[in-house]
Amino acid sequence: MASLGPSIEQLIEAFRCLPGVGPKSAQRMTFHLLERNRAGGERLAEALSLALNKVQHCQRCRILSETELCSRCDDEQRRQDQLCIVEMPSDVLAIEQATHYRGQFFVLTGHLSPLDGIGPEALGIPQLIELFDQKTIQEVILATNPTVEGEATAHYISQLAHAREIKVTQLAHGIPLGGELEYVDSGTLSHAFSGRESI
Amino acid sequence: MASLGPSIEQLIEAFRCLPGVGPKSAQRMTFHLLERNRAGGERLAEALSLALNKVQHCQRCRILSETELCSRCDDEQRRQDQLCIVEMPSDVLAIEQATHYRGQFFVLTGHLSPLDGIGPEALGIPQLIELFDQKTIQEVILATNPTVEGEATAHYISQLAHAREIKVTQLAHGIPLGGELEYVDSGTLSHAFSGRESI
Repeated sequence: MASLGPSIEQLIEAFRCLPGVGPKSAQRMTFHLLERNRAGGERLAEALSLALNKVQHCQRCRILSETELCSRCDDEQRRQDQLCIVEMPSDVLAIEQATHYRGQFFVLTGHLSPLDGIGPEALGIPQLIELFDQKTIQEVILATNPTVEGEATAHYISQLAHAREIKVTQLAHGIPLGGELEYVDSGTLSHAFSGRESI
Repeated sequence: MASLGPSIEQLIEAFRCLPGVGPKSAQRMTFHLLERNRAGGERLAEALSLALNKVQHCQRCRILSETELCSRCDDEQRRQDQLCIVEMPSDVLAIEQATHYRGQFFVLTGHLSPLDGIGPEALGIPQLIELFDQKTIQEVILATNPTVEGEATAHYISQLAHAREIKVTQLAHGIPLGGELEYVDSGTLSHAFSGRESI
């Protein structure tokens, strides 16, 4: 087969770094931009360079931010005594969109995973301990993912908070709304059953 | 909700120019690159700028190419007497991967669509007529998409070729291999039935 030329092939290869993009989608994206939307492609290249250049992590909560403190940490209107701990920046957005929570956040950017060499340091735990030691936080809300690694990370952090006599809560586990009981996995169902509430 | 900062939001917006990428995927791509794969993001930005800068259309067949003539048109080993006409560059790759065809190609980059203002000029028909008039082409193979617009475009081109006494063929229509008859659409089935072949 005749080749497409190095810069087209390089672009197809480069698109594959995006999550969920395989060889076919990467080719489709490349042809789409070069054939039909060059202006969009230029905007994308510029936005990428700009963001990679400017966006760092907030010094306090570790979310992505262009400024040293993100707009949340810089906002004195927010409650200072609650701290919600999540794995990823997108979890912050999801919680803010779904709830009325307007306290502080802390983004671990992952979970403990010793086999991959991800220990407390990589998750910013030393920074978190500093926050705990400032004594302003009255409640730590653990909102890590309900996976084995997420639960282990939550357990580890809860011990750190308990040692400093900070109240620790965790998102409720149970049956998700709107589904059918038949299709709920057995782990969730047994958890929900043993944790049944009087009404 | 607190904002993410202008350059993150710009990047999310810019990713939406890609085909099949909605607001959620765009956010996921943005967080993924900024959080986990900055090197990949830089490679993508560079590859995009480079390709947008270098890649033009081949002067002869209109496929995307970095050089004035693409590697296919520049290859004298290929048959010069057959010309396969397709709508998109990806169709060229698909045909080369699936068949032994090693003749010439011509990429329309779309189909006739008067309502969208896409007429013969936009599809390079004047260029195609020049090719026809060079008298080297003995057979035109129409491989436009089997849609109403694709068929109309094929019909239009077949008339141009017939007027110059060039043989015109079209990809065979019928039942695709590997499916079940029950799920073949009725248009295809009726076409396949009336075009039945003796074996």
